[in-house]
Amino acid sequence: MTDDGPVIVSLAAPSGTGKTTLAVAVVERLTAAGLRVGVVKHHGHRMELDEEGKDTWKLRRAGATSALLVADNQVAWLSEHGNPPPAADLIALFYPAGAVDVVLVEGFRSAGLPTIVVERSGVEDADWVEPAGPILGRVGPDEVDRVCRLVTDQVRSTRP
Amino acid sequence: MTDDGPVIVSLAAPSGTGKTTLAVAVVERLTAAGLRVGVVKHHGHRMELDEEGKDTWKLRRAGATSALLVADNQVAWLSEHGNPPPAADLIALFYPAGAVDVVLVEGFRSAGLPTIVVERSGVEDADWVEPAGPILGRVGPDEVDRVCRLVTDQVRSTRP
Repeated sequence: MTDDGPVIVSLAAPSGTGKTTLAVAVVERLTAAGLRVGVVKHHGHRMELDEEGKDTWKLRRAGATSALLVADNQVAWLSEHGNPPPAADLIALFYPAGAVDVVLVEGFRSAGLPTIVVERSGVEDADWVEPAGPILGRVGPDEVDRVCRLVTDQVRSTRP
Repeated sequence: MTDDGPVIVSLAAPSGTGKTTLAVAVVERLTAAGLRVGVVKHHGHRMELDEEGKDTWKLRRAGATSALLVADNQVAWLSEHGNPPPAADLIALFYPAGAVDVVLVEGFRSAGLPTIVVERSGVEDADWVEPAGPILGRVGPDEVDRVCRLVTDQVRSTRP
């Protein structure tokens, strides 16, 4: 692999399509093929990683707008006020050149990333918005092979 | 406040000094004084934010080297392989200009940050290493006022 950054591919799907099951199968297959895969997932709305009584909880209750917790293997940013940094900046910081070969992204349809659209007939999503980035292909939720091929094609096209 | 980045001050102390209790009191006081305070905490060694059965857990078990989870109010990066980005880069990304006035940092003694050393007589820490950054002062674990004054002096000195 070269010093270029990782290939970033987004999986976009109307909700209820089975996107995560597909993503898990794709990660398994790509990893088995020797690629190092990182994943990025958009969590709808809010989540809560903190626990009552922990130091970060105490600090936030004392008025801290947010807490950044850094361990050897994990980083967490917990905020009540303030939005997370843009997805592209987060990906660039956590997946710099050399860290992984592929970053598989779920969500962030408006980020302009190269995107594979997952479709299942009969699934309708009133909130669906067509992704802003270039569409690499449209697949069904069981087409693991095809998604892997689309991803590895991207890897090959960026590795001289 | 200006467009400058936040004032960053590290609290460094041998373990067992009561640093977190002091930090909580300092956050309370600074917040009451109208400052927006973010905190950064170094978590010794490893931590585990993920839970069995969650999507990120499935993706990591499938072979993903790491997972970045982004919600409206929290960001988590969960990794088995790979180190977190440098503390300075994390602080710059999560606490850009305008987000907060003060970032209070616990740990990261080697990051070269302006540092207040907390000392308690009788506490010995075999792992203690003197901080690399400029020392703003040395305080006892009950000196909330003095720490707040040292921090607000820093804020004033960077705000014209």
